[in-house]
Amino acid sequence: MSVLVVGSVALDSVITPFGKADEVIGGSAVFFSAAASLFTDVHVVGVVGPDYPRADLSFLTDRGVDLSGVETAEGESFRWAGKYSYDLNSRETLDTRLGVFADFQPRIPDAFRNARTVFLGNIHPSLQASVLDQVERPDLVACDTMNFWINGARAELEALLGRVDLLMVNDEETRQLADEPNLVKAVRWIQERGPRAVVVKKGEHGAMLFHENEIFFVPGYPLEDVRDPTGAGDSFAGGFLGYLDSTPHWDDGAWRRAMVYGSVTGSFAVADFSVRRFRTLSRDEVAERARLFRRLTAVEFEIADAL
Amino acid sequence: MSVLVVGSVALDSVITPFGKADEVIGGSAVFFSAAASLFTDVHVVGVVGPDYPRADLSFLTDRGVDLSGVETAEGESFRWAGKYSYDLNSRETLDTRLGVFADFQPRIPDAFRNARTVFLGNIHPSLQASVLDQVERPDLVACDTMNFWINGARAELEALLGRVDLLMVNDEETRQLADEPNLVKAVRWIQERGPRAVVVKKGEHGAMLFHENEIFFVPGYPLEDVRDPTGAGDSFAGGFLGYLDSTPHWDDGAWRRAMVYGSVTGSFAVADFSVRRFRTLSRDEVAERARLFRRLTAVEFEIADAL
Repeated sequence: MSVLVVGSVALDSVITPFGKADEVIGGSAVFFSAAASLFTDVHVVGVVGPDYPRADLSFLTDRGVDLSGVETAEGESFRWAGKYSYDLNSRETLDTRLGVFADFQPRIPDAFRNARTVFLGNIHPSLQASVLDQVERPDLVACDTMNFWINGARAELEALLGRVDLLMVNDEETRQLADEPNLVKAVRWIQERGPRAVVVKKGEHGAMLFHENEIFFVPGYPLEDVRDPTGAGDSFAGGFLGYLDSTPHWDDGAWRRAMVYGSVTGSFAVADFSVRRFRTLSRDEVAERARLFRRLTAVEFEIADAL
Repeated sequence: MSVLVVGSVALDSVITPFGKADEVIGGSAVFFSAAASLFTDVHVVGVVGPDYPRADLSFLTDRGVDLSGVETAEGESFRWAGKYSYDLNSRETLDTRLGVFADFQPRIPDAFRNARTVFLGNIHPSLQASVLDQVERPDLVACDTMNFWINGARAELEALLGRVDLLMVNDEETRQLADEPNLVKAVRWIQERGPRAVVVKKGEHGAMLFHENEIFFVPGYPLEDVRDPTGAGDSFAGGFLGYLDSTPHWDDGAWRRAMVYGSVTGSFAVADFSVRRFRTLSRDEVAERARLFRRLTAVEFEIADAL
């Protein structure tokens, strides 16, 4: 089984209260792959310029990530620069240079078309739709988006929702997409338009899964050392979909465990700049942190205790 | 066993996107009592003016809340008016008239001095200390505070921490008190100054308990109908401490369940203005929602599944 991810392959320059990094590898497809490859085979489609340090991606190839769908186009690689606030809960974009990403037209190699799971990273909804036109009946199509498309390409986005099984967005985007302040009602609005599942990401506060009639919540892990929140959401998506892709049966328990594994990979992503922490991350460390997540919310009620 | 609460008894005027209420009963001691009285006996110390509608508190008396420590002083009752934002996550104070609360000097009746559990609502740290001077060795002293005292009475507050077992504050206050952006480190800073337990309240995102070396998280319940967030924190404290007070042994499981019961009563508080929802709230409804909270985070990992 394999996951296909289509998204940005970027060079990030990041300043946080805990340090800085210049022109390091990033982008949704890179963070997603670093996380998902802990669980399953990953196929990446994206675009870079000839200036991209492809050698820095070799640890992904070593872990079974197929980068043959990352084409090199004439021009500059996509660059993003940002600076985080004191408590890391907000950030300011200092610079965005789309470069070759501005004209990105995803072309899915034949060998990638039968992926069981597809993740549509945050690109124009029409491009996300074009990916779906090129693949054969995946079992699960998951999709990210952002306020820029909600405002600027609403019709295309709403049309896309009818072809998506799982939407992964943050709480602000959820409310904005549905134009509804109540999160539960906003999610119902989205589910009525297609996705049977919605993951609402809440940054350091955690994430909520609405799946059919179930709601499941995983908190953000209380970390003493967070160095850079960049890529946390895409790393979450990678752990979530990587785990699901590796799992034969998708019952309620599997969806819940996917939330935990997504939170685990998200929590490791923020421990260092770029995808550095993933370079050494072992499956044992992932399993150990999943146990810590479980302990974080474990509670038992005895009969005698039920008031 | 009984809980002693010392705090405000107020008249609130509130505007939310879902309605408004004028001069309705509120204040930390009122919300706390409404919640705690579902679990245990509650003794209240506070002050009101002759204008206070004491009859509106009779449902508390009917539930075993002893209001004999709420004195009537010459002057106006404490009044607060506020307006909430679109998504209820922020609010603007429109008016604060302290009235008789400005000169509040807590006097603990003899019959209240042997409470097992004490909750010091959000008043000047020196007044909170004066309460502790008047009581006999409670098993647990819990304390709320706010940014106003963190900035304006830091020395008194830090001195008080040495006499407190459990500090209940929101995430912003936690960071501000410790002057530390990382929440986990901020909590350790607080624990080094006295409280062996810290509850960090995160509004709709939930609450975290740091108790000795354990961390436990309860999410906010995903509610479709939130009408007024006023009093959620004090209702949380009431459910939390009311449950603990009714429980003989305070092991790790009891602390975790207290978090759930606090979240349960907090989630009911916001369903209507003032303490209206508590007037009809039954213990069966509390137990049922506790089960829903447990389901919200329940996840199982099989051995074979542990990567």
